[in-house]
Amino acid sequence: MFNVRPTLSPISEAKRHAMKVKLDGLAKPTGGLGRLETLMITLAGIQQTTKPRTAKRCVMVFAGDHGVERAGVSATPRKVTWEQSINTLEGHTTVASLAIANHCDVKVIDVGVDHDLSGTGVIDKKVNWGTKNLAEEPAMTRDEAIQCLQAGYDVALDTINEGNDLLLIGELGVGNTTPASAIISVLLGVPAADVVGRGSVISTERMAHKTKVVEKAIADWQPDPNDPVDVLSKVGGFEIGAKAGAILCAAEHGVPLILDGFLSYAGAVIAEKLDPGVKDHLIASHLSREFGSKCALDWLGLTPMLDLQMAVGEGSGAVLALSLIDAMQSVLTHMNTLADIDVRFKP
Amino acid sequence: MFNVRPTLSPISEAKRHAMKVKLDGLAKPTGGLGRLETLMITLAGIQQTTKPRTAKRCVMVFAGDHGVERAGVSATPRKVTWEQSINTLEGHTTVASLAIANHCDVKVIDVGVDHDLSGTGVIDKKVNWGTKNLAEEPAMTRDEAIQCLQAGYDVALDTINEGNDLLLIGELGVGNTTPASAIISVLLGVPAADVVGRGSVISTERMAHKTKVVEKAIADWQPDPNDPVDVLSKVGGFEIGAKAGAILCAAEHGVPLILDGFLSYAGAVIAEKLDPGVKDHLIASHLSREFGSKCALDWLGLTPMLDLQMAVGEGSGAVLALSLIDAMQSVLTHMNTLADIDVRFKP
Repeated sequence: MFNVRPTLSPISEAKRHAMKVKLDGLAKPTGGLGRLETLMITLAGIQQTTKPRTAKRCVMVFAGDHGVERAGVSATPRKVTWEQSINTLEGHTTVASLAIANHCDVKVIDVGVDHDLSGTGVIDKKVNWGTKNLAEEPAMTRDEAIQCLQAGYDVALDTINEGNDLLLIGELGVGNTTPASAIISVLLGVPAADVVGRGSVISTERMAHKTKVVEKAIADWQPDPNDPVDVLSKVGGFEIGAKAGAILCAAEHGVPLILDGFLSYAGAVIAEKLDPGVKDHLIASHLSREFGSKCALDWLGLTPMLDLQMAVGEGSGAVLALSLIDAMQSVLTHMNTLADIDVRFKP
Repeated sequence: MFNVRPTLSPISEAKRHAMKVKLDGLAKPTGGLGRLETLMITLAGIQQTTKPRTAKRCVMVFAGDHGVERAGVSATPRKVTWEQSINTLEGHTTVASLAIANHCDVKVIDVGVDHDLSGTGVIDKKVNWGTKNLAEEPAMTRDEAIQCLQAGYDVALDTINEGNDLLLIGELGVGNTTPASAIISVLLGVPAADVVGRGSVISTERMAHKTKVVEKAIADWQPDPNDPVDVLSKVGGFEIGAKAGAILCAAEHGVPLILDGFLSYAGAVIAEKLDPGVKDHLIASHLSREFGSKCALDWLGLTPMLDLQMAVGEGSGAVLALSLIDAMQSVLTHMNTLADIDVRFKP
């Protein structure tokens, strides 16, 4: 699918316009619901309807380990990836807790966890037992990069075929803000120092080290900015590739996909480079606290709904934003139109 | 209550600290939920518990008309105040629709509507049939100002006694961004031109006229910036005074109060001037699109949760923010602590 250019589902300008007319017809100041109105117009365009379908939704949490975790870029030990994979399915992580509050199904997909998760309920799409350490060698082979893209695509397709109206993406992967920073740095042509952030709250010293690791990996492996698969393979991660694959699948099938934070942006940048126009099928849930967030979202042309200084990942921000969609569905269902009021208060 | 200095309910620093410790003990990056964590720490301090009570909540929508509506400051006709009062109770306005989605009770209180609302379910606390036109005379008498403050206080007290855990405030009142701008301008000592905004989406010409109306009223009636009741009476509105009264009541009784937008900020500024420290009992739900919003919230020292470019009023932003509180309650209920994980994955 990402070797041949896929056919993106069209965005309906007519339905976008019709949704704007519908919102303008409600008894409130024109545009008074601000970005919430923009959100519903986006959904109308993607789903090609003025009655967006949002009831059934699923967050796909892609999990993978990172060789670069051995290079001291993270404050969290590697085992947290597999432990949190299980905790998520058991309903005890941030994303799982928020999914309960927001009526969202949860899948965890192993695309590269360094642990045997068979029999746990985690979906097995393991490409390898973690990536290689990009401080010492390229993170994965080109073939592995294609495999993780395909894994994400396939899981998204299954999730769509199960009848989900909205797809959400999240991730688990200790050390993964390092490859995400490298991907954004290379593909958008911005210095690593402007992109690398504190991840799971690392010290200033460790952040300086992390920046050097990213700079050196880019210098050593020379990923080709015109070849997103090359960038993914040399400085990426399995779960990031899977997210890009899921995004491509959603955009092909006319299903809105809600991004989470920094890792989602990295996946979206890969997907948009592979197939320009993908971004029109995406909703940015929140502005992650990572430093490279704004530059990635600006390049994608996406405005985040929330800015709560969150930096958890897992899909937490994406799931949280569902409450805004539910609120707007209630507005569309219950609010009077101006015409309704004329009838109600006819002299 | 506002003539004599009330006793504010204390904020528990111990419970604030205990909530921070509780949040830090969850299996996520420290502070990773950003402002959502600050929100829960605020609730813990006000309610003096690490198990905030948030299940039962009520938005009090105070309604009143404004003589200045006759001066061409609004694009909306006066009758909309009473029509939307009824529509709110019937579940068909923005605030009512969002209240359905967020499991929030709704009260509408007539503190000065220019219409007979008896028999409609609207709570009758009418001070007068609209304020006077502040472009031609002071908006109300000092006695009326005290009456509307008391009305808000009394309704809030009833609402607390009914067992509500959280109070929210909203309003209906065509023309009310004009007095709200005047109040903020006088009490914070900022030029009217920096505060006056587009209200229910008025033209640039009408906004210039609105600014002049505010400037002239302040020059003509000389409200005393050191006497909030004087300011309320000369350039205010009944529903704004009622909101200030409700805020004072909540702060006395240890019940968190969630502000909506610009009209709420005006009420909060009056309340804080009457009784410094009230602001510590408030939660800012969102940043209203009105120009004076940031200066009012900065002065109050409050950081809004949402910035969605909303400008509906009614209490809509306050009710919308409940979903963030519900999300965090789910986090506190369902998430593993770091200790839980040690037990779960004991070798």
